[in-house]
Amino acid sequence: MTFHPPQKAMQFLLSHSVDMEALRALPQFEDASQELVSDVLAGAAAFSSDVIAPTNWDGDQSPAQLKGDDVTASPGFKEAYKAFVEGGWQTLATPEDIGGMGLPSVVSVATNEMIYASNMSFGLCPMLTSSAAKAIHAHASKELQEIYLSKMVTGEWSGAMCLTEPQAGSDLGPVRTKATDNGDGTYSLKGQKIYITWGDHDCADNIIHLVLARLPDSPEGSRGISLFLCPKYFVNEDGSLGERNKFKPIGLEHKLGIHGSPTCTMEFDGATGWLVGEVNRGLACMFTMMNEARLFVGVQGVAIGERAYQAALDYANERVQGVPIEGEAGDPILGHPDVRRMLLEMKTRLMGARAIAMATAAASDLAFASQDADVAKTAHAREALLTPIIKSYGSDTGVQVASIGVQVHGGMGFVEETGAAQHYRDARIAPIYEGTNGIQAIDLVGRKLRRDGGEAMKRLIEDLKQIQSLAEGSSSADKLGLSQCTASLTKGIEALSTATDIVLKADDKEALSVAMPYLNLCASVISGAFLLKSVVKGAESGDELTASMASLARYHAVAILPEANAALAQVQAGASALFDFPESQLADL
Amino acid sequence: MTFHPPQKAMQFLLSHSVDMEALRALPQFEDASQELVSDVLAGAAAFSSDVIAPTNWDGDQSPAQLKGDDVTASPGFKEAYKAFVEGGWQTLATPEDIGGMGLPSVVSVATNEMIYASNMSFGLCPMLTSSAAKAIHAHASKELQEIYLSKMVTGEWSGAMCLTEPQAGSDLGPVRTKATDNGDGTYSLKGQKIYITWGDHDCADNIIHLVLARLPDSPEGSRGISLFLCPKYFVNEDGSLGERNKFKPIGLEHKLGIHGSPTCTMEFDGATGWLVGEVNRGLACMFTMMNEARLFVGVQGVAIGERAYQAALDYANERVQGVPIEGEAGDPILGHPDVRRMLLEMKTRLMGARAIAMATAAASDLAFASQDADVAKTAHAREALLTPIIKSYGSDTGVQVASIGVQVHGGMGFVEETGAAQHYRDARIAPIYEGTNGIQAIDLVGRKLRRDGGEAMKRLIEDLKQIQSLAEGSSSADKLGLSQCTASLTKGIEALSTATDIVLKADDKEALSVAMPYLNLCASVISGAFLLKSVVKGAESGDELTASMASLARYHAVAILPEANAALAQVQAGASALFDFPESQLADL
Repeated sequence: MTFHPPQKAMQFLLSHSVDMEALRALPQFEDASQELVSDVLAGAAAFSSDVIAPTNWDGDQSPAQLKGDDVTASPGFKEAYKAFVEGGWQTLATPEDIGGMGLPSVVSVATNEMIYASNMSFGLCPMLTSSAAKAIHAHASKELQEIYLSKMVTGEWSGAMCLTEPQAGSDLGPVRTKATDNGDGTYSLKGQKIYITWGDHDCADNIIHLVLARLPDSPEGSRGISLFLCPKYFVNEDGSLGERNKFKPIGLEHKLGIHGSPTCTMEFDGATGWLVGEVNRGLACMFTMMNEARLFVGVQGVAIGERAYQAALDYANERVQGVPIEGEAGDPILGHPDVRRMLLEMKTRLMGARAIAMATAAASDLAFASQDADVAKTAHAREALLTPIIKSYGSDTGVQVASIGVQVHGGMGFVEETGAAQHYRDARIAPIYEGTNGIQAIDLVGRKLRRDGGEAMKRLIEDLKQIQSLAEGSSSADKLGLSQCTASLTKGIEALSTATDIVLKADDKEALSVAMPYLNLCASVISGAFLLKSVVKGAESGDELTASMASLARYHAVAILPEANAALAQVQAGASALFDFPESQLADL
Repeated sequence: MTFHPPQKAMQFLLSHSVDMEALRALPQFEDASQELVSDVLAGAAAFSSDVIAPTNWDGDQSPAQLKGDDVTASPGFKEAYKAFVEGGWQTLATPEDIGGMGLPSVVSVATNEMIYASNMSFGLCPMLTSSAAKAIHAHASKELQEIYLSKMVTGEWSGAMCLTEPQAGSDLGPVRTKATDNGDGTYSLKGQKIYITWGDHDCADNIIHLVLARLPDSPEGSRGISLFLCPKYFVNEDGSLGERNKFKPIGLEHKLGIHGSPTCTMEFDGATGWLVGEVNRGLACMFTMMNEARLFVGVQGVAIGERAYQAALDYANERVQGVPIEGEAGDPILGHPDVRRMLLEMKTRLMGARAIAMATAAASDLAFASQDADVAKTAHAREALLTPIIKSYGSDTGVQVASIGVQVHGGMGFVEETGAAQHYRDARIAPIYEGTNGIQAIDLVGRKLRRDGGEAMKRLIEDLKQIQSLAEGSSSADKLGLSQCTASLTKGIEALSTATDIVLKADDKEALSVAMPYLNLCASVISGAFLLKSVVKGAESGDELTASMASLARYHAVAILPEANAALAQVQAGASALFDFPESQLADL
């Protein structure tokens, strides 16, 4: 099936939901003109649909293979990856000072969504490379940066994150991989890592692993873990590749989805590594990688959902079955009200999550580039606040939307050959990796909401209220039927304020008990507000797609935003619903 | 992983949510003593966990195979099926006059849930056999009944439903398979059927197909379709099996899940068939099979969900990661609030759907056995009303719960070897087959709600109000914390009444546009009320599990019932959210 990246939707949100003009006003992004951005999106759309999308099905049906000590990627991946590197797609949002194009990351949210939608398994490799390069840029020595960074920025060498061990997943404290100081500036690593995405493959010339390990005299737990750089192949002084390092893939997981992404068990058997950052500060360094990765995992949910949506829309436009309520015999099932409802549900949820993703990236761009320290600080707090929300809500949306996509296909959706089932399988990983969604919820109520006494959230709520006023005062409000939206948003903002107060006043147990419903409440309200904002701004500038976006905002107002009130009931109930009975009762009935 | 059928939960609902005493008071069911029912449940639990459950994984990993003209079922299935027939499990709820045990079908809802949870793929064969036998009993000639029925009642011969063709799925009107009158009381059938569950296999000695086909002079569309019985092997006069009939499997689908269930493309190439029921009344006869099957598909959702729940609970009891809020280092993740929340969410949703399934079956039992025509009529209307609700809600619940089950497992859930992923894949078919959930919603608002002017629904609402009064007046209300439940139920019943009035007054387009949110609204409220009823009745009779069930009812009141209010917003919005923009806009953004 052909995939058409949703350029228009992205452009609309970039123009009207995100404040691109404010970013362009910054010296860092002054080159990111509307035309350039538009050209980049068009180029990425063509590249991802023509070159990457055709590899998706083969990746699913012919997973990567481990032979001897080497993993061979799925058919077509190596060629697609080569084209990806040569096209310069890896460098898009990398700062210019380390060899990137220096575009705002809000643009790479759009282009990465296209890549992930084309082939999520494939897209994980560039995602990890980008995160690893950023961690190296932020924490590694000048020497290491000089050796590794330029090749990683282009994607000629890929990156991998070696964190998880069987006993250390969500909690990395118990990491057991051992590092020994060789006394010559290098370390020797010994241990086993699991679930290493793109841990080995034949697409890039070298693979740069960032590995968490513990030095002999380090304390137990998370404060005794250090980060090491281990290249698959050593790099000679002239930059050519030397011998293979002493670590290798010893197994590939047989997974529910993303079959095209090799998930490796890696054995480090005296591998040589170089310390990145300070001793025992490995987790902090790793979090540099994690935050960007979390945003992009949320984007993956949107991406898979978009592809599932397009497949469902195509099917609904072709399949004839029964006579639609306003149609004639022979009209396709798109005319059946519940089929339309499913498609609108998919599209609206996606668009809302996409708007949150863009807002997160825009905040990170502002935090990075603003020369006003206060603005940068506030923007950073916004980015930090929205990151767990988009990771969790975006990935959950992907699963939900892919499931509806199967449903629109009826029996055909359950048969693998239509591809709808692949999206349902692929989407399921996103709520799990890069910190489970439960971890995101803990991060939201713990670090992001309560540590600053709710300041970042209160600022966000103020912004939402401004959107509301803007919509109420819009001269297009009547024409676009925005009263439904503003009425629904009023209730949503009330629910969000009430819930925020509750969580701020709660003790840890109470707060953790309601963390996930609180996160979902936030996402329902924020996504609705962001869509509404884009409608009002779009109307102001006479964008011809405003009516389309308004129909989504209205659907959101009646079908999605009201979920905030249901979530509020759960927040209000607190911990008692979960704890007021002995644990044994879970097994009693 | 060991599976433990939830006997206690089933017993609790049978005793306190369903009025088993009223059923026992009927001559038809006077033998169904509490002891007998209890013994049957215990026996079914042992049989399904010991004999059937161990085949589940093999069925997934080694799907049925087509070799030549024959399908071979997955490893172990033939032996398990033989034990199933010999144990008399097929006959449980079949009326005594055709050789069954004559137990109420509310009991078979419980035992079938055990079978489906043990191996959903396997359980489809008995389900189809039961439905086919009922259709033959209701519509076939005495002669056909004498030849086929007794062997189908025991399960020695299995049944299959041949409805779907590529162009005829949700709408069977366009069925093209041709039937020609041979002039000797038989017909000759020619055509291709797809998605035929257990259409061929080696577990039973013969397979009795019920096939929809069109006679040459029949009108077009759904009023020109007749039903034919086609045995795989002809039956000689002495009851022995003769030659093979002229139809065969020509392909097996490669599916997302239920790999152990052979989904066949069947080619009828001059197959000999016998007419069942009247010419051109085939669809009506088929619906005799459909209604029971729809209830049981809802039960499948609960079943898969239950197995996913048990796996998740086991994992949460074993996996150590981080320090739980009220625990110590080394305590399992069950102590983390969000893990508990996920488990409670799973269990509560399942229990609510299970209660609706049992109420549906109890109504069908009453309709079948009551000697009071008014009571029977009312009960039949209740069964008819609840059937689309349980089919849709039960199956959606299965998907939702299986997805949470994956999440509880974290990364391990995405790896196939844990089995959590299989449940997620298997569960996805239930919202699709036996009438997609969209079709169920149409059935609910069309046939079940509006044809009788809302009478059956209003009776149900009255019953819910009685449950509410009962709970408010219960002497255990305080002790069990039921005020949360009654407060939530009050709002829920209001939402249900308001929504019902809206749908009753709406035109077809409006009604169809809100059909699915209306169905979900009904299910949220009804499931909450039925759980609450069981708590109150359980408290009255001093059942020691009442406190456990009360904790689920309370969770339902804060986390699930409030969804009814969100759904109400969608019902109130009506068709405009779906239709007030041109269809092209779905592709615009």
